[in-house]
Amino acid sequence: MRAAVFNSSRQPSAHFLQLEDVPRPELRPGYVLLRVVACGVCRTDLHIVEGDLPQLQPRLIPGHQIVGEILDGATEDLLLGTRVGVSWMGGVDGDCRYCRHGEENLCDNPVFTGYSVNGGYAEYALARTDFVYPLPAGLDDVHVAPLLCAGITTYSPLKHWNVGPGMKVGVVGLGGLGHMGLKFSHAFGAKTVQFTTSAAKVEDAQRLGADEVILTKEPNWAAQHAHSFDFILDCVSANHDVDTYLRLLKRNGVMCSVGIPEIPVSIHAFSVLGRKAFTGSMVGGIRETQAMLDFCAENGIASDIEMTSFSNLVRAWERVVKADVKYRFVLDLKTL
Amino acid sequence: MRAAVFNSSRQPSAHFLQLEDVPRPELRPGYVLLRVVACGVCRTDLHIVEGDLPQLQPRLIPGHQIVGEILDGATEDLLLGTRVGVSWMGGVDGDCRYCRHGEENLCDNPVFTGYSVNGGYAEYALARTDFVYPLPAGLDDVHVAPLLCAGITTYSPLKHWNVGPGMKVGVVGLGGLGHMGLKFSHAFGAKTVQFTTSAAKVEDAQRLGADEVILTKEPNWAAQHAHSFDFILDCVSANHDVDTYLRLLKRNGVMCSVGIPEIPVSIHAFSVLGRKAFTGSMVGGIRETQAMLDFCAENGIASDIEMTSFSNLVRAWERVVKADVKYRFVLDLKTL
Repeated sequence: MRAAVFNSSRQPSAHFLQLEDVPRPELRPGYVLLRVVACGVCRTDLHIVEGDLPQLQPRLIPGHQIVGEILDGATEDLLLGTRVGVSWMGGVDGDCRYCRHGEENLCDNPVFTGYSVNGGYAEYALARTDFVYPLPAGLDDVHVAPLLCAGITTYSPLKHWNVGPGMKVGVVGLGGLGHMGLKFSHAFGAKTVQFTTSAAKVEDAQRLGADEVILTKEPNWAAQHAHSFDFILDCVSANHDVDTYLRLLKRNGVMCSVGIPEIPVSIHAFSVLGRKAFTGSMVGGIRETQAMLDFCAENGIASDIEMTSFSNLVRAWERVVKADVKYRFVLDLKTL
Repeated sequence: MRAAVFNSSRQPSAHFLQLEDVPRPELRPGYVLLRVVACGVCRTDLHIVEGDLPQLQPRLIPGHQIVGEILDGATEDLLLGTRVGVSWMGGVDGDCRYCRHGEENLCDNPVFTGYSVNGGYAEYALARTDFVYPLPAGLDDVHVAPLLCAGITTYSPLKHWNVGPGMKVGVVGLGGLGHMGLKFSHAFGAKTVQFTTSAAKVEDAQRLGADEVILTKEPNWAAQHAHSFDFILDCVSANHDVDTYLRLLKRNGVMCSVGIPEIPVSIHAFSVLGRKAFTGSMVGGIRETQAMLDFCAENGIASDIEMTSFSNLVRAWERVVKADVKYRFVLDLKTL
């Protein structure tokens, strides 16, 4: 099969993700073989290829937002041809205290799709049978792919902290994660405020569901919003001033970072007085991921995407780094 | 009456807290007049006198850990001569969303004893009738005073986050706050681990209830304790490495800072993945403060203290700054 392969023995760089002919993965018990239909492109894929994350495999096919059809390994619940999704969470031990409580995303011994095992930048992919999600009708292939990453990553904390009517919720950053956080928070009924540094994004934020857009390049933008937010979802991965956002929280408020900046953030202990919390979240559990997909189908929610081809992948990545994509790239498998 | 007065028009310094003869406060409706019996000495008093906090009063009597007897303004519930405590929380608006839920400590419009109004470094003090706590028998005057500050400050977060049997709890720093956090966590039935930089404190930590003491000056002390704590109470006010402690938390674990370092702490977003929270807490509500005092009386818990006189106050403060006190100073009112 054709696949985009990262070979760590080559100089690590996006340019060295090479299109190759590799053997089609062989079906194993407990797995299904998928014909890949679409695969979302994530900043994390770039981190892997650039060597920012520890290398777990000398040769790797990236991609963890896979939409595919079951080609082999069908079961009673997963018939041949069933359209399914595969996410970052490629497997867990099933036995730790988190798995036993349905929080597989917090598992102590996780397997990551497209990182610890091969992913979806390929014509075919192998996935654990209990880690594929039947996709509801009404979600089309290419728009559903990013839900398996940006979707669940933002849905999970918004659900966990009970975002809903009567709450004022802020979303920091309008990119792949942020645009899904905005859609979910709006759909959950919260008054949703988009924070952005870019005046060019105001209109888009409103279209995507923002009740208010706050431009964080304005001088003294923060002062008038102090102590007014119940929850803030921080979707920014670039270095930014987290402390200022903590001061926007009401007491007992929560700020959850899903952007995961590479360098540490600076927080003043005074900014979390009154049980304000700075916290993080990591994708979502199995049931939660399926619930997210079902919620999206019922509420007509999908990711805003741009298509890219394999030959344009490097250029797409350059645009991802510059946050210049509306709002996730999805790899067109026909180009492999 | 004799009182220790901070006059902000003088050069701010502990040396300029002066013993003066001032008029005894006059009773007002809704207040009780107390004859002060003991008053704890807090690092915050020093911050006020040193000008580290905004000055709210040109002339101020500090002190917010007051034990006194009701001399005037007695009510049906608070008879003449009743022994009561007064804490940092000298009053609230009673009307905000926090007050309405019994979280007066988070009130939007608080009054602080010994900061926004006069406190207990004096022979007599005025206190709002609804903000004095009848002291249970079995708690003696001088050992109970610090409970009104260090006691409630550590009790409240340990209670809020349900510290109890089956949990592993860390207490960072063994000072005025830490020694109370240690006692409470132990009394609540948690496996309690004291972190300290000082080998000289190991024995004391064990005496105070630590199941284990971890010396944080040892090389690589943290690695072997990663992902093992349910809750960490951070009682250190000096600059320290918060991020290392966050990595000791289990997923879903909470680290609560009550030490409130003056400079910002540095936190890596990776260290809070899995819904680990960095948070803060601020004393406790009215019912909670009374519950803490009752719990202490029932369980024979009090603060370990050293007595100091007014003339030794500056020296006592110097020792507080060097963390050289076991574990709180209490001002002997007879020396005023």
